Amino acid sequence: MERAGRSSTLGSSDEVELEPSGNSATIHLDMTAGGGSSSSDFNPFGAIDDVRFKTDDDLPDVMVPPFFSKYGDFHTIDWQRDLARDRLRHKMISKKKVDFPLGLLQSGWDAGAGWICVLFVGLAAGATAGIIDIGARWMSDLKTGVCADRFWLDREHCCWSSNDTFYKDDSCSAWTKWPWMINYYNSSSLLFSFIEWIFYIVWAVAMSTLAVLFVKIFAPYACGSGIPEIKCILSGFVIRGYLGKWTFIIKSVGLILSSASGLSLGKEGPMVHLACCIGNIFSYLFPKYGLNEAKKREILSASAAAGVSVAFGAPIGGVLFSLEEASYYFPLKTMWRSFFCALVAGIILRFVNPFGSNQTSLFHVDYMMKWTFIELVPFALLGLFGGILGSLFIFANIRWSRFRKNSKMLGGNPIYEVMVITLITAAISYFNPFTRKSALSMIQQLFDRCEDQVEEDSLCDQNKALSIAFGQLLWALIFKFIITIFTFGIKVPCGLFVPSIGMGAIAGRILGITVDQIFRAVQATPGHSEYFTCQIGKDCVMPGLYAMVGAAAVLGGVTRMTVSLVVIMFELTGSLEFIVPTMVATMFSKWIGDGISKMGIYEAHIELNGYPFLDSKGEYPYSTVASQVMRPSIHRQVADEMSMSDLRELKNELSVITESGMTLGDLESLLRQTDFNGFPVVVSQNSMHLVGFITRRDILLALHTARKTQPYVVTNSIAYFSDGVPDSVPGGPAPLRLRKILDMAPMTVTDQTPMETVIDMFRKLGLRHVLVTKNGKVLGIITKKDILQFMRNKDSQ
Amino acid sequence: MERAGRSSTLGSSDEVELEPSGNSATIHLDMTAGGGSSSSDFNPFGAIDDVRFKTDDDLPDVMVPPFFSKYGDFHTIDWQRDLARDRLRHKMISKKKVDFPLGLLQSGWDAGAGWICVLFVGLAAGATAGIIDIGARWMSDLKTGVCADRFWLDREHCCWSSNDTFYKDDSCSAWTKWPWMINYYNSSSLLFSFIEWIFYIVWAVAMSTLAVLFVKIFAPYACGSGIPEIKCILSGFVIRGYLGKWTFIIKSVGLILSSASGLSLGKEGPMVHLACCIGNIFSYLFPKYGLNEAKKREILSASAAAGVSVAFGAPIGGVLFSLEEASYYFPLKTMWRSFFCALVAGIILRFVNPFGSNQTSLFHVDYMMKWTFIELVPFALLGLFGGILGSLFIFANIRWSRFRKNSKMLGGNPIYEVMVITLITAAISYFNPFTRKSALSMIQQLFDRCEDQVEEDSLCDQNKALSIAFGQLLWALIFKFIITIFTFGIKVPCGLFVPSIGMGAIAGRILGITVDQIFRAVQATPGHSEYFTCQIGKDCVMPGLYAMVGAAAVLGGVTRMTVSLVVIMFELTGSLEFIVPTMVATMFSKWIGDGISKMGIYEAHIELNGYPFLDSKGEYPYSTVASQVMRPSIHRQVADEMSMSDLRELKNELSVITESGMTLGDLESLLRQTDFNGFPVVVSQNSMHLVGFITRRDILLALHTARKTQPYVVTNSIAYFSDGVPDSVPGGPAPLRLRKILDMAPMTVTDQTPMETVIDMFRKLGLRHVLVTKNGKVLGIITKKDILQFMRNKDSQ
Repeated sequence: MERAGRSSTLGSSDEVELEPSGNSATIHLDMTAGGGSSSSDFNPFGAIDDVRFKTDDDLPDVMVPPFFSKYGDFHTIDWQRDLARDRLRHKMISKKKVDFPLGLLQSGWDAGAGWICVLFVGLAAGATAGIIDIGARWMSDLKTGVCADRFWLDREHCCWSSNDTFYKDDSCSAWTKWPWMINYYNSSSLLFSFIEWIFYIVWAVAMSTLAVLFVKIFAPYACGSGIPEIKCILSGFVIRGYLGKWTFIIKSVGLILSSASGLSLGKEGPMVHLACCIGNIFSYLFPKYGLNEAKKREILSASAAAGVSVAFGAPIGGVLFSLEEASYYFPLKTMWRSFFCALVAGIILRFVNPFGSNQTSLFHVDYMMKWTFIELVPFALLGLFGGILGSLFIFANIRWSRFRKNSKMLGGNPIYEVMVITLITAAISYFNPFTRKSALSMIQQLFDRCEDQVEEDSLCDQNKALSIAFGQLLWALIFKFIITIFTFGIKVPCGLFVPSIGMGAIAGRILGITVDQIFRAVQATPGHSEYFTCQIGKDCVMPGLYAMVGAAAVLGGVTRMTVSLVVIMFELTGSLEFIVPTMVATMFSKWIGDGISKMGIYEAHIELNGYPFLDSKGEYPYSTVASQVMRPSIHRQVADEMSMSDLRELKNELSVITESGMTLGDLESLLRQTDFNGFPVVVSQNSMHLVGFITRRDILLALHTARKTQPYVVTNSIAYFSDGVPDSVPGGPAPLRLRKILDMAPMTVTDQTPMETVIDMFRKLGLRHVLVTKNGKVLGIITKKDILQFMRNKDSQ
Repeated sequence: MERAGRSSTLGSSDEVELEPSGNSATIHLDMTAGGGSSSSDFNPFGAIDDVRFKTDDDLPDVMVPPFFSKYGDFHTIDWQRDLARDRLRHKMISKKKVDFPLGLLQSGWDAGAGWICVLFVGLAAGATAGIIDIGARWMSDLKTGVCADRFWLDREHCCWSSNDTFYKDDSCSAWTKWPWMINYYNSSSLLFSFIEWIFYIVWAVAMSTLAVLFVKIFAPYACGSGIPEIKCILSGFVIRGYLGKWTFIIKSVGLILSSASGLSLGKEGPMVHLACCIGNIFSYLFPKYGLNEAKKREILSASAAAGVSVAFGAPIGGVLFSLEEASYYFPLKTMWRSFFCALVAGIILRFVNPFGSNQTSLFHVDYMMKWTFIELVPFALLGLFGGILGSLFIFANIRWSRFRKNSKMLGGNPIYEVMVITLITAAISYFNPFTRKSALSMIQQLFDRCEDQVEEDSLCDQNKALSIAFGQLLWALIFKFIITIFTFGIKVPCGLFVPSIGMGAIAGRILGITVDQIFRAVQATPGHSEYFTCQIGKDCVMPGLYAMVGAAAVLGGVTRMTVSLVVIMFELTGSLEFIVPTMVATMFSKWIGDGISKMGIYEAHIELNGYPFLDSKGEYPYSTVASQVMRPSIHRQVADEMSMSDLRELKNELSVITESGMTLGDLESLLRQTDFNGFPVVVSQNSMHLVGFITRRDILLALHTARKTQPYVVTNSIAYFSDGVPDSVPGGPAPLRLRKILDMAPMTVTDQTPMETVIDMFRKLGLRHVLVTKNGKVLGIITKKDILQFMRNKDSQ
C-alpha cells in the first residue's frame, strides 16, 4: 500500500508537528502567571486507542521512539484537546497582530483561511464533477459505438455536430455503431443485435475490470460509496489515506469507468467522497486546518455539502445533507461556510456544463400542472412501498456483504466478482430499453411529462406500446433490485443514490400508469366524467410526478434521509408545488422503514465494518447508570451499596498512577503489564481521589525522553505528577517531574449519572473517555468503545 | 395582570403535576432492584434561580407552602432533569404497551403526539396568518376610504367586484374616498388632498392608539417583535404568560391594527411569536409536551419554523431560521417535524389565499434574465451598505430603547409615545408615494421588473418622472431609517423584517437606477456599445434585482442571519440564478456588520433586557480556567497552588450540607442565612468530598413535608442524605431520611478545566450550574449567571 504511506507522510510532517508542542510550553508559563495553568498545556502527541484496533506494536518495550503523528490509524480524535490546541494557536496569532505589517497580515490570513480554503474546494469539486460527468458519458456511449470523425465526442454531441437529419432512436449516421465497423449494416437483423450485444458486454466488462484493477493496485480505499466512512471520519475517526490524493485520483478514474460500464451504480455517493478528498488535500495548504484533525473536519463538512451540491445540482440540499447526515461536532457553526462552498461548486459545475444544457439540476423537470388531494393516497402507498423495498434492500445487501466479507473465495477475488456481476448486468440489461440506456436518461424519461416528448415514447402511447412498456418496467424493477443488492459493495467506486432513484422512479411510473388507466376507465364509463374537474392525461394524474415521488420514497427507504432528501427533490423541480407529495412519500417511507429496522444503509454498513460511530440523533431510553457500564465492572453488588472494603477491592482492578511515590520502574512495569491506553492519576492508592488523567502515549514519550536526556534519572527515581517536588531527595536518585504531561481537566461523571446523560456528553462534547467517580474517588472509566458496546447490547435485547 | 394569572393556571394544574412525582418513586424502587438508583428519581418541583431575578419571597420563613409550578417565572429550566422525567414517562408507557388494547393505543398516541401536535400548530398558524393578512389589508385601506356597498371589502376586491372600468391610480368609483363622504369630489384640488390627509392621520392614530390600549390593558407581553424573547424561551428561559392565549389574541388584533396604522413596522416577526403562542397552547392538549418544559420547546421550535413559513411563504427558510436562530438544545432532532409543521402552515395559508393570487410567497418575483459578473461589484457595495446601515440602526435603536427604559416620561406613557410616532409617520409619509402605500406594495413595486408594469410606473420612465422618483426614494430611505429607529420598541406588536427589507429595497433600487443610467450613458457613447453583450434595460442591469439584493443586505446587517436569509430570498424568487447576488451581499453585510459590532438586533435587545441567553454559536478564546470563574472566588492565590489550609478557608465561604450529622435545625438556619439556590452535599466539612447536590426548593419542600407528616421529626432530628441511616438513634430523636431528594449525579468539572470547555458544556448539555472540584473536593460552583457575567466582562475588555 504505497499510497497509504504517501498520504500519512502528508499528515505527519515532523517539523511542523513539533512546533505546537514547543509553543504550548511557552504559553504554559504565561498562563500560570495569569493564574492557574490550563489543561491545554499538555503534550499533543498522545492518542487513546478506544476502538477495537489495538496498537500492540508499542506494548512489548517501553522505549519506543516517539510518534510524531498526532493520531494513529483507526483512532478517534479528542475534540476538546484539538480545539484547545487551536485556541492556543489563535492566541499566538492574536498577540502578533500588533506587529505591523507581518503580524497583521498573518492574522488576516488566519481569519480568512477557512473561506479561502472552501472556495478552492468548491472550485475543484465543481471542476472534478464536470470532468467526471463528461468522461462517464463519453465512455458509456463507447459501449454502442464511436463517433466516426471525432472520436472524443459522445453520441449526443456527435450527432449534433454532424448536422444530419437522420437522427432517430438516439442515433445518427455520424455515430458509428460497432457492427458497422465490421461492415454489418442491417440493423433490424438478429445478427446485428447479437454483434452489438457482444460488443456491449465486452466493453462493459473491460471497463469494470480496469476500474477494479486500478482500485486494487493503487488505492484500496477508492472502492464503494464512501459515505459510511465519511460519516465516521467526520465524527472524529481517523482512517489514514482514506482522503488522500491517490484515493482521489483512482476514485475519479474508477468512477468514470465503473459508471460507464453500465453497472447498477451511481456517481453521486462517491462524489461526496471525492469532494472530501479535495477538502482534505486543500486543508494541508492551511496549517490551521491541515495539522489539526478537529479543525480539518470543518473543511470536510463543507466539502461534503459541495459533493452533494455537484452530484444533484442542489446546493441547499447539500448543506442540509451535510447537516443532517454528515456533520457531527459543529452542526451550525460551519453552515454558512458550507453553503458558500456548495454554491461555488454548483456554479463551477454549471460553467463546465456537463448536462449539455443550462440546467443546474441533474434531472430537469418542468411540470406546470397540479396534483389533486385524492392522489395523496397513491403517494402514501409509494412511501409504504419505498420503506419496505428500502428495508428489504438493506437486509439483503448487508447479508450479502457479510457473506462476501467472510467468504475466502469472494473476499480474495474482487476482480472475478466484478467481472461476473458486470457480465450478468450487461448481458441482461441489453434486452430491456429501460435498463439498456444509462440510469440517468432512464430516470429523466420516467420523470418527463408525455407532452414534452419529441420522439415517440412508448410510455406515452395509449395503445399497445404502453402495455409492452409496462411489462418492461416491471421486469426492469425486479432486475434492478436484485442486481443492485449484489453490486453495492463490489470493489469499484459505486454509489447508491442513482440506483435507488431509478428503482423508485420505475415503481412510481408503474403506479402512475395504473392510476392513470383507472382514472381513464372511470371517466370513460358513461355518467362518471363529471367527477373529474381536471383533464386526465393533461392536468391530472401525471405519471412523471409519480415517478418522482417514487424516487424520493425508495431513496428515503434506503438512506433514511428526511429534510435533505425533500429539499434535494425540491431543488430538482424548483417548485413548491411538489414538496407535499414528496414529503408525504418520504414520511411514510421513513416511518415504515424505521418500523422494520432503525438503520439506514449507511448505518448498517458502519456497523458491519465495526466503525466506532456514535449516532448524533436518536434517543436511548435506558434505565442504566454510569457505574453499571464502566470498567472495571462491578459484578458483586450495585455501586450504590458499596462499602469501603468493596472500593478497596475494586481499586485493585483499576490501574491507576499515584500523584507521587511511584518510581520510574513502577511506571514502566505498569505499562508493560497492562494494555490500557490511559491511566487516572490519584492522590494515593488508599484514597483514590482523582487528580488527573494521563495517556499511555504521553507517558511512554515522557519516560523515553527522560531516559535519553536526563542521565541522572534512574529506575529508582520517583515520578512526581504533583507540584510539591523536592529539588533532590537526600540519599535517593533525582526526582522525575511529569506534571506537564498530566491532563488536569479530565471529564468526570458520578456513578449515579444516567447513561443517557453520559451518551449525550460523548456525542455533544466529542469525548473519548470519561472517568466515573463516587464521593471524589475514581471508580472506573467509560470509553467510547464501552458506550458503543453497551448500546449494541441494549439494542439487541 | 390578570392574563398572566390565567396562563400560569394552565401551566400548573395541581393534579397532573403531582402525578410524575408519584410515579418516579415507584420507578425508583424498580431501578434500585435493577442495580443502582437513577438520578431521575428526585423530586421534580425544584428550580434554581440562576438569573438576576431573586425569589426573595420564600426567604424569610422556611415553612412555605409547596410550589406546584415546575419553574418559577424568569427561571431557567434544567434540560437534563426534564428530559430524564420524560424518559421515565416514556418507560411507564412502554411497559403498558402489552395491555391490549388500551396500553397499545396509549403507546401509539404517545408516539404520534408530536406529529399530531405540530399538524394542529401548522393548521392554526396558517389560518391565523391568513386572517391577519386579510384584516390588516382591509383596515389599511380604511385610511383612504371605504367600499360603498360592501364595506367589508378592501380596495382591491371592492374595485374588482364593482366591475367598472374606471380603475386608475389604485382606485375606482365603488371605492368611496373619505373626502367624497363630505361631498367633496374635486380630487385634484389642494383641499381634497388636505381632507384626505387629515382622515389618513386620524385613522392611523386611532388604530395605533387602539392597539397600544389593548396591549397595555390586556396583555403587556403582546408588544414588540417577540423574537428576542422567543430565542430566550427556546434556550430554556421561562417567561410565564409570554406564550399564553391572551397574548395570542391581543397580539393578533394589535398586529392588524398596528400594521394598518401605517407605522414603519412589519407583521413578520410577531408572526413567529404568534406561531409560538399557538404551539404553546396546543402543547397543553398533549401532557407529554405541555407538562414538560424541555419537551415543550420541541414544539415551540417547530412553531417558530411555521411562523417564518407563513410570514414569507418560505417553509425551508422557516426550518433554517428555526435551526440557525431559534433552536437551542436539539437543533437536528426536531428538524423533520419542524419542516412538516412549516409546510402545513404554508399550505393552509395558500388556501386562505390572502395575497389574492396563487402565489405562496410574499413578493412574487419572476425575472427571466441574467446578471453579469461585473455586477457583483455593486452587489458587494450593497452588502457593505447593508452592514453599515444595519449596525447604525442597531446602535441608534438600542440607545433609544435604553433611554425609553430609563426615562420615566417615556416608559410610563407608552400611549402618548405611540400616538406621537404615528402622527409623525402618517403626516409625513402621506406626501411620498413610496411611503404612503403599504410597505408590502412598495417592496413589490421596487422588486418588479419594468416590463411587467401595467400602469404607469415612475420608476420605469426614462424621462423626468424617474429623476423625481429618484428623489422620492432617497427621501423615503432617510425617513424610513429615522422613523424605524423610534418605532421598533414602542408598545404595539411590531416586527423589523419588513422595514429592513423596505429600506434595503429602496437603497438597492437607488443603486440599480444609478448603475442602469451609467450603463446607458456608456452605451450611448459612440464606440462603446460593443462592450455590452446584453441589452440594457431588457436583460442586463435590472434595478428590481438590485432592490432584492439590497433588501437581503440590510436585513442581513440588522439581524445577522445568514443561510436562512439567503434561503428565504431564494424561496421568494424560486430561482437558483439569484442566490449568488444575494449571497455576496449577505456575506459582505455580515462581515462588515460583525466587524462593527458582533451583536444583531435581537442579541442586542436580549442584552438590553438582561435575559440569560447563552449564544449557541460563536467562539470564546479565553485563557481562563474554571477555578477563576467559580464562586466563592479565590482572590488570594491561584487555585493551582492552594494548600490544605487555603482549602479550609475556602470551605467556610462555600455553603455546603454534610451527608449526615446536620440537624433539621441546622438545615433551616442554613436556609435562612443564605440565599443560594442550591447546596453541594459533601461527606464531611473536613474532607469536602462531593456526594451530590440539592436545590433550595427541594429541601424547603422536604422539610415542610417532614414537619407536617412526620410528627416525630423535631428540630434536633439528624438529616441523613446517605444510605446508612440508623433506624433510631438511642436517646435521640428520630432521624430524617432525605436521600431521595438528593441529586446524585451533579455535573462536575475540575478546577483546571478551560472555560471554553465549561461554556461548551453549558450550551450543549443545557446546564444550569456545574460544581468545581479539585482532587475530589468541592471548591465552588459556576452557574449560568456566572458564565454570562464572565463573558460580558471578557467582551468589554
